[in-house]
Amino acid sequence: MFEVRGFAAPQANAPLVPFKVPRRDVGPNDVHIEILYSGICHSDLHQAQDDWGPGIFPMVPGHEIVGRVKAVGPGVTKFKVGDYAGVGCMVDSCRECESCKRDLEQYCLTHTSFTYNGTEQDKTTPTYGGYSTDIVVQERFTVKISEKLDLKATAPLLCAGITTYSPLRHWKVGPGQKVGVVGLGGLGHMGVKFAKAMGAHVTMITTSASKGADAKRLGADTVLLSTDADAMKAAASSFDFLLNTVPVSHDLNPYINLLKLDGTMVLVGVLTPIDGMIGGALMLPRRTIAGSAIGGMAETQEMMDFCAEHGIVSDIEVVDMASINETYKRLVKNDVRYRFVIDMATMPA
Amino acid sequence: MFEVRGFAAPQANAPLVPFKVPRRDVGPNDVHIEILYSGICHSDLHQAQDDWGPGIFPMVPGHEIVGRVKAVGPGVTKFKVGDYAGVGCMVDSCRECESCKRDLEQYCLTHTSFTYNGTEQDKTTPTYGGYSTDIVVQERFTVKISEKLDLKATAPLLCAGITTYSPLRHWKVGPGQKVGVVGLGGLGHMGVKFAKAMGAHVTMITTSASKGADAKRLGADTVLLSTDADAMKAAASSFDFLLNTVPVSHDLNPYINLLKLDGTMVLVGVLTPIDGMIGGALMLPRRTIAGSAIGGMAETQEMMDFCAEHGIVSDIEVVDMASINETYKRLVKNDVRYRFVIDMATMPA
Repeated sequence: MFEVRGFAAPQANAPLVPFKVPRRDVGPNDVHIEILYSGICHSDLHQAQDDWGPGIFPMVPGHEIVGRVKAVGPGVTKFKVGDYAGVGCMVDSCRECESCKRDLEQYCLTHTSFTYNGTEQDKTTPTYGGYSTDIVVQERFTVKISEKLDLKATAPLLCAGITTYSPLRHWKVGPGQKVGVVGLGGLGHMGVKFAKAMGAHVTMITTSASKGADAKRLGADTVLLSTDADAMKAAASSFDFLLNTVPVSHDLNPYINLLKLDGTMVLVGVLTPIDGMIGGALMLPRRTIAGSAIGGMAETQEMMDFCAEHGIVSDIEVVDMASINETYKRLVKNDVRYRFVIDMATMPA
Repeated sequence: MFEVRGFAAPQANAPLVPFKVPRRDVGPNDVHIEILYSGICHSDLHQAQDDWGPGIFPMVPGHEIVGRVKAVGPGVTKFKVGDYAGVGCMVDSCRECESCKRDLEQYCLTHTSFTYNGTEQDKTTPTYGGYSTDIVVQERFTVKISEKLDLKATAPLLCAGITTYSPLRHWKVGPGQKVGVVGLGGLGHMGVKFAKAMGAHVTMITTSASKGADAKRLGADTVLLSTDADAMKAAASSFDFLLNTVPVSHDLNPYINLLKLDGTMVLVGVLTPIDGMIGGALMLPRRTIAGSAIGGMAETQEMMDFCAEHGIVSDIEVVDMASINETYKRLVKNDVRYRFVIDMATMPA
C-alpha cells in the first residue's frame, strides 16, 4: 500500500479538496499507471453531489484515465514500462459469470467494481478514481493507446467514447443507414464522429441552432432542429437508428416518431424516470427503444484501435487540477465543448 | 353494390343497432365471404365509444372474421366456393411501398385500409367490419382456414392470434428461452399457447392469483404473481423475452427488471402514454422495449397454418348478435375467458 496525491469530495455536495489516495502495491497481474490526464465526465459531478446516492465518501472521481506505465507485475503481457495506457469506468469484475465470459464486464452478474464510488471484488474496499497522480489496475481493465493519437484528447474515449461506440457497433450501424445523434455534448460529439467513421449518413438532432455549424464540423451530414415542428414532421419515420445522449428526462415521443419500421433508439444518457412514452407510437410501425451502458474491455480496446485507425479523439479543453470546483460550475452551465480534461501535471504538491 | 344485415354504432358512445351495411360487388380479385363468426376484440369497444377518436360513424365493428366463401372473382386463385376464409384487421393497403413489398401491409407507408373505422384506398369510402352477414375483400387480405380447426374458435386468431404470434416470431422465440407473458386476457392466452408451441419455457405473469390455474391449463410452465415482491425480486434479470399484453398504461419498471442482458419486452396492448420508465433500468444491463402491431397477411396465413399443425384455437364464449350491448358490458368488467365470438346465424332478420 502506498499513497498518492489526489482530489476528493470529502462528503456529498462539498467542494473537492486535496486528498491522499491509497493505492495497492503492484500485484502479479497489475499495471501501475502514472496518470497524465483525466477526463471530467458529467457523472463525476452527479456522483460528487450524491445525486444518485448513497455515494461512498471521501470520493475521488474520474473514470477517463490515461497515462504512462510506470511498473508492471510479472504476469502482465500487454505493456512494458513507458507505454501509454488507459483505464475507464471499471477496474474489476468477477471474470467468471456469463457476462464476463462474453467480455461484457459492465454487466457482470456478480459485481462490477466501478473505478470510483464503488468497491473492489471484496465489496468492501472503496475504489478511487482518476483525479490523482497514480493508479494500480488489473491488466484486463486497462487498454493500450496508440502513440499516434494526442494523448490528452484520448482520455474522454474511456467513457464518452465507449458509451457511444458500443451501441453503434452492437446495433450494426454502417453504410446505407440514416443515423441520428440526439444531443450535442460530451457523448453526442463522439457519437457523431463514430457514426460518420462507420459510414452512416449522420444527422445531429439538437434543440440549439447555434450548435449546427459545430455539428457539421464534427462530421454530421445534416442538422435537424428538434424545436422545428415542420422539420421534425418531414423527418418522421426516416431514421434507422437514433443514439439518444440527452442526460436528463425528456419527452421521447418526438424522437420515437423519427424512427422507421424496425428502427431503434438507444438511450445512453438518461438514467431517471421518463414520463409519457406513447405505447402506440412503438407499435405503428414496429419500433424499438433500448439502453446501453459503456462497453466491455475487449470492445474498449477495439474502439481505441478504431480511433487510431480513423484519427478520432475527443474535442477537449485542458484544465488545472486546482480549478476543479470552478470547472464543475462551468460544467453545470454546459460551458464546455465538449470535454474537460485535467492535466495531472498541475496536481498541487 | 348491395346491402347486407349488420350492427353499427350510429355515433360515439351509442348502443349498437341494426344497420344495412353496403358491400361492393365482387371484383376480379375479390372474395365474397358469408360471415359465420366474428370475434369481439376489446378495441371494438374502444372504437365504438370513440375512445381513440375521431371515429367514422356509423361504425360496424369486427376484425376477427371467419366464414365460408360464397363467390370469387375470376382472378382469385386461393379459394373456391365453399372454402373457409378469414379476414383480420386490414382489407387493403397500397401494395407497392417498401413495407407492402416486405409483406408488412399493416405498416404500409401510404395507407392501410383497416377493416372498419377506416377508409378504402381512396381514403374516402368508409370500411365496415365483421358484425355483419357478408363481406367482400381483396384476395390478398384473406386467409385460408383449415377444416381441422373448430371454425368459431379460429375467429380471434385474426387479431388476438396474429398480434401475439408475430412478435414471438420476429424476436425468434424458441426452445431454451425463458419467455414471460404479461397479462392473461384475449391476447395473453394466445401468447401462452403460441410461446409454448414454439418450444419456450413459458411463465404467465399476472396480478391475479385466481388466473394461475387457468394459465397452466393453457400451457404455462409457471406462474409469477407481479404483486409478490419477493417472487419478482427472485425472478429479476431472468427472462429472455416478455410479451406484454396489458391494454392500459402501467408501470413498466417491474417488468423491465425481469429482463436479462439483451432481453426484450414487446408491448402489444398499451397504446396510451406510459409514465415513469426508468432510463437506467434499460442500461444496466442492456435491455430492449419494442412495440408490435398485428402482422402482415403472409404471416397471418403462416400463423393459421401453425395453428392447424399444433391444434391451436382461442378459448371462446359464443354470443348472440342481438346481445352485443350486454356483451360489451361484460367485456368492460373483463367477464370473459378469453374471447367473445358472435354467431352470425343469430343476426336478426
